[in-house]
Amino acid sequence: MYTVLAGGVGASRFLQGLAAAVPQREITVISNTGDDLDFAGLHVSPDTDIVIYALAGAVNPETGWGLAGDTFAVVEALERFGYPRWFNLGDRDLAMSLHRTRLLREGWPMHRIAAELARAWGLEVRLLPMSDDPVRTLIEGPEGELPFQEYMVRLRTEVEVRGFRFAGAEAARPAPGVLEAIREARAVILAPSNPFVSIGPILAVPGIREALAGTRARRAAVSPIIAGQVVKGPAAKMLASLGHEVSALGVARLYRGLIDLFVLDTADAGLAPEVEALGMRALVTETLMTTPERKRALAAAVLAALEAAP
Amino acid sequence: MYTVLAGGVGASRFLQGLAAAVPQREITVISNTGDDLDFAGLHVSPDTDIVIYALAGAVNPETGWGLAGDTFAVVEALERFGYPRWFNLGDRDLAMSLHRTRLLREGWPMHRIAAELARAWGLEVRLLPMSDDPVRTLIEGPEGELPFQEYMVRLRTEVEVRGFRFAGAEAARPAPGVLEAIREARAVILAPSNPFVSIGPILAVPGIREALAGTRARRAAVSPIIAGQVVKGPAAKMLASLGHEVSALGVARLYRGLIDLFVLDTADAGLAPEVEALGMRALVTETLMTTPERKRALAAAVLAALEAAP
Repeated sequence: MYTVLAGGVGASRFLQGLAAAVPQREITVISNTGDDLDFAGLHVSPDTDIVIYALAGAVNPETGWGLAGDTFAVVEALERFGYPRWFNLGDRDLAMSLHRTRLLREGWPMHRIAAELARAWGLEVRLLPMSDDPVRTLIEGPEGELPFQEYMVRLRTEVEVRGFRFAGAEAARPAPGVLEAIREARAVILAPSNPFVSIGPILAVPGIREALAGTRARRAAVSPIIAGQVVKGPAAKMLASLGHEVSALGVARLYRGLIDLFVLDTADAGLAPEVEALGMRALVTETLMTTPERKRALAAAVLAALEAAP
Repeated sequence: MYTVLAGGVGASRFLQGLAAAVPQREITVISNTGDDLDFAGLHVSPDTDIVIYALAGAVNPETGWGLAGDTFAVVEALERFGYPRWFNLGDRDLAMSLHRTRLLREGWPMHRIAAELARAWGLEVRLLPMSDDPVRTLIEGPEGELPFQEYMVRLRTEVEVRGFRFAGAEAARPAPGVLEAIREARAVILAPSNPFVSIGPILAVPGIREALAGTRARRAAVSPIIAGQVVKGPAAKMLASLGHEVSALGVARLYRGLIDLFVLDTADAGLAPEVEALGMRALVTETLMTTPERKRALAAAVLAALEAAP
């Protein structure tokens, strides 16, 4: 059994590769819900839905989020009632949030809802939100705190990040099955996601970091940074503004003590000795997931390296 | 001031004519909420929305309900999650229900929501739901009770109707302003709507029938039946299955004691003496509202006949 801690786009691409390398039913995904939001009274879970759409082969390949071929009639019509247009939720995407919201109102916990949505899309992975309790990622900027989607979508990350707060995390409990999935897995993989706002909220739920630090599973992380740049999202900017080295090594340092293997791109092969000096092995391989073959090859390489561990 | 008791399609066409004959701000609409329903967790108010769309010039002219040019991506996408496809809510139409549902959850009463939605569509009529409290029209058929939309949309009225129940009506209070709008109007008009399931639920809210019976306003009703047939909806079928005469006269009898003037089509001129024998005047005029001119002319004729009363 393989457990993956997952954010949005990068994680979903890695999971596509993993699901091509091993049967879906051997995969447990622990999904970030820190960037969930309320939009027009709907509970939207962007990272969870990206993972579902990607594994169902339905994700918009251009954006990496949302559904291929989706339309935007509802969000356009909502403008009349004063709703902001910046959160660009597609119509079919919105149907998913409508169903989720209805189930929430009926009292379903988030982990049952995630399982129901994954099932409706024909998935066989086990999809667990990090917590059934609300945790909200807030970005600390020069003018105060911003909800994550405002920072990410409305302001297009054009804000200096000074820190983060995961509101609600202290009181949140891991969703049922999360700690077991980390403790009892054959391998736990931190997907190539933003270490601060994708993996960070998951590790902020009390008990999850400890389970990862103490598990006997083999543990790996894949760098979201290649040659000092990020494929998608604000990870590089955040590393810089928070005073970290903007490189795979900078990410590896954040995961010190939590992983046994760090996966970095061939472009960063020169960093491998410094990574290994942190007390983890380094796997240097192609990490740019531009094709199904590359995705599968990356997952297979990570699994092989984990198996090959002493 | 003119107050109109209104159901869906027929009422909305009459209101288009009335709004062409007098300024919108002189019109109060009391809207049937008996066929409101929950769809995928959304509070949908079909009759109220038909009135808004018609007065805003945005209604689908072919169906008489929904928005012209609307799409159906959300309801199609909801099928994956097990939602029935028969309730064909358009995407832009759904946006309205999304906003309404959000305001309801925030604690807004229905009459404030109706006013907000009418304002968002640029209307100047005063739009009042009959009650802020839930009233649900149930159709008594051979196999028990059916929610109104199941009877109307899913079963396409292919059920023998044996009676009605307006669940919640006994405990419902008229929305603020409803009784005053009936008592203090210059004229009260019962739109050419179904007397059982459009006007009936409104009159079932305690106090409304009494206000109508006792008002000093001049009162009219427009027959939804022309030459024994209904333009739209199941009114003719219901008259028949409940043992009433399937004619304008059959409708006039239902309104005995509640109106001073009954408006029937030129095709039914021969029924005028029997209508007048019920203790109300009869106005015979063209009632088929096929064009804007005919709609305006009907409204003007009704107002003129009310003004001409002794």
